Amino acid sequence: MLHLNAFLMGVGHHEAAWRLPESDPFAQTDVAHFQRLARIAERGKLDSLFLADSPVLWNSIGRRPSGTLEPTVLLTALAAVTEHIGLIATASTTYNEPFNLARRFASLDHISGGRAGWNIVTTAGVDAARNFNLDELPAHRDRYERAAEFVELSLKLWDSWDDDAPLGDKEAGRWGDDDLLYPTEHTGRHFRVAGPLNVPRSPQGYPLLVQAGSSEDGKELAARYAEAVFTAQQTLAEAQAFYRDLKQRAAQAGRDPDTVKILPGIVPAIGSTEAEALALEAELDRLIRPEYARKQLATTLRVDPEVLDLDRELPADLPSEDEIEGAKSRYTLIVTLARRERLTVRQLIGRLGGGRGHRTFAGTPEQVADAIEEWYRSGAADGFNIMPPVLPSGLETFVDHVVPILQRRGLFRTEYTGTTLREHYGLPRPANQFTRQPAAV
Amino acid sequence: MLHLNAFLMGVGHHEAAWRLPESDPFAQTDVAHFQRLARIAERGKLDSLFLADSPVLWNSIGRRPSGTLEPTVLLTALAAVTEHIGLIATASTTYNEPFNLARRFASLDHISGGRAGWNIVTTAGVDAARNFNLDELPAHRDRYERAAEFVELSLKLWDSWDDDAPLGDKEAGRWGDDDLLYPTEHTGRHFRVAGPLNVPRSPQGYPLLVQAGSSEDGKELAARYAEAVFTAQQTLAEAQAFYRDLKQRAAQAGRDPDTVKILPGIVPAIGSTEAEALALEAELDRLIRPEYARKQLATTLRVDPEVLDLDRELPADLPSEDEIEGAKSRYTLIVTLARRERLTVRQLIGRLGGGRGHRTFAGTPEQVADAIEEWYRSGAADGFNIMPPVLPSGLETFVDHVVPILQRRGLFRTEYTGTTLREHYGLPRPANQFTRQPAAV
Repeated sequence: MLHLNAFLMGVGHHEAAWRLPESDPFAQTDVAHFQRLARIAERGKLDSLFLADSPVLWNSIGRRPSGTLEPTVLLTALAAVTEHIGLIATASTTYNEPFNLARRFASLDHISGGRAGWNIVTTAGVDAARNFNLDELPAHRDRYERAAEFVELSLKLWDSWDDDAPLGDKEAGRWGDDDLLYPTEHTGRHFRVAGPLNVPRSPQGYPLLVQAGSSEDGKELAARYAEAVFTAQQTLAEAQAFYRDLKQRAAQAGRDPDTVKILPGIVPAIGSTEAEALALEAELDRLIRPEYARKQLATTLRVDPEVLDLDRELPADLPSEDEIEGAKSRYTLIVTLARRERLTVRQLIGRLGGGRGHRTFAGTPEQVADAIEEWYRSGAADGFNIMPPVLPSGLETFVDHVVPILQRRGLFRTEYTGTTLREHYGLPRPANQFTRQPAAV
Repeated sequence: MLHLNAFLMGVGHHEAAWRLPESDPFAQTDVAHFQRLARIAERGKLDSLFLADSPVLWNSIGRRPSGTLEPTVLLTALAAVTEHIGLIATASTTYNEPFNLARRFASLDHISGGRAGWNIVTTAGVDAARNFNLDELPAHRDRYERAAEFVELSLKLWDSWDDDAPLGDKEAGRWGDDDLLYPTEHTGRHFRVAGPLNVPRSPQGYPLLVQAGSSEDGKELAARYAEAVFTAQQTLAEAQAFYRDLKQRAAQAGRDPDTVKILPGIVPAIGSTEAEALALEAELDRLIRPEYARKQLATTLRVDPEVLDLDRELPADLPSEDEIEGAKSRYTLIVTLARRERLTVRQLIGRLGGGRGHRTFAGTPEQVADAIEEWYRSGAADGFNIMPPVLPSGLETFVDHVVPILQRRGLFRTEYTGTTLREHYGLPRPANQFTRQPAAV
């Protein structure tokens, strides 16, 4: 069975979606909008929904709807109106304290009955650093080192209560067993945390761990910890290579590769005919204002906006990935895409405006289902991260017209069979690393 | 009109409430329990509900239900099932980053339609410090200095978007007006934050600011910023003195004293007869296990548990408040209460087990209403922080039997007249400090 995640983003992943007549330009901060999206995704029996995040206001607010509700809080509001679907929040290891973040995820896991997931990010960009007492972005390698310690420490905090620690023994007046608490007493390079956490172990033990960076450091972190990986892949061959590479790294890290689910992103513009789908895509691209996009592209590429001529290809002399301290794999993906397809800056902006480097695809429901099936059956994906260009309509179309095809083909569930996010992904509840085994008799 | 806040705490404020037959000992992590409490409080037209918090696991888990869901997350789940009632979360200025916390409160204010409140605390206790890379609790004065800078900075972040910054102009392709963003560019002793926040200004402008520390530093912070103050007062005379003092300090800080609402706590054990109420109180006290409570009292008083004889008064030689770096006002309140009423340690433990230093009161609904009215009419309170000893039953009894009496006496609203928390407290929506006034013509 393949796995499907709905990547929610305001009124859609296409940067100009908000300009369509159907779109509410202020939906970005409207909880009812997100609750509607969550219900649609759950109607489609999707494994999970997902919110990206960075603790910074990006670029100009002229360009597109800006400002985003904090994901752990927003997902709690979605937990209240859904019963099955998993809820994955992005949170930064660079700009949070482990005790606070581990606690919020444990709380979300309790509140949602075991549906919480954490997309672990290290957060690129000096602008975010400047919101947290820093002048410069910490180096890529340092951010990933801190991330690994952050995750290890979080795992200790989530395991700091034995599942059996709460007793609730009214008669004896003994609520819990102090001997079944495992104080963290963590002393590392980045953190010192005594613990235990002040939340009992949660329904899933701990949230599903998700990772989405595809740099070398990112893939190493994913191989060690991630249970689901979101990735941007433009071609089948690239996706297959990434899939093989990551599964191999997981095996080298001593893990069963089947417990790491790989989900490339896809931005499906869906029409009842191919022409209708292409017309939607063209209409969205027409609504992009290229001056904003050119400026952002220039920032990503570390060049002056003036050197990017809208009607020419990218300049030949660009920095190498090694010189980039920000989102390394995103940088390489953009440059590779532009060079391979010999795109003009304007064409590149159109492609990025649709999916920010993720694979865009225009077609009928049948064609979208074919595209999904092909990658799934070719060792390129365990599932997909669905990024509708327009929301809610693009998600509704996917759920009502693509999901039934996948179900008929026996590729996707027709009913939820589990209640937790890990169950949807076919993963066991993790044992507590500190639980003492009963002595042999 | 007086103001009523429901202070929610697991299955009740009395430490032994969980041992009653009616109590679910695991309700502490059950969102449905809290959603039920929120609906009851809203049925009673209460102004707000409130969650205390500290990022640490207190003491032994043998004593009482332990571990608490993170308040901003839990309140979001309560926002989803209520429409009017205000939602006040405690959060620490010592162990959070301003950007992250300001953003979560702005998010909760958006999601709840303007019902968020922040109880600003500096967090006492070395055990919490040890969860955040520290070996020692920062000094009381330093914590309050950081708190003041934290609040000032948060106010800047919440005002970093003009109310008019979002435009949503689809035709022109201009979503927002960058000139109406006010970057924070804060550089202080404790924080450097560039801003702007990545959430548009919220329905209330910013959350209602609440404060609950009654030390000198705490009262100064309240006088400068707090719009509501929770306080523990044992006698009418003490409550009147506190009320006069704080209103005066607010006036000295240049504020209208009416915009600072003072709400002493009351722990009402309610029975249909006085005898029934006293029996409930006695039953709860009987269920306390004094060995746990004695240990905690010894920690608070900074003495060896052995010197506290259950059947004698407190020892004569205790530290002065000046030597206490933790919860100063709580320390003084406990010592004063014990000395004034010449309580044995066992009696003191009973009083603290019921309300942790807050005023306990056993009586009929009429007697509880009388007690409330007396303080309200005597310049001791603008309202009350209702702390039912047993939940949900104590809140249900209060809402169904005490509130109607207060309503008949014309002391309390019979319907909500506003939609935001500030409206319930009769406070205006704050103007944005950075909005440029239009030039005079």
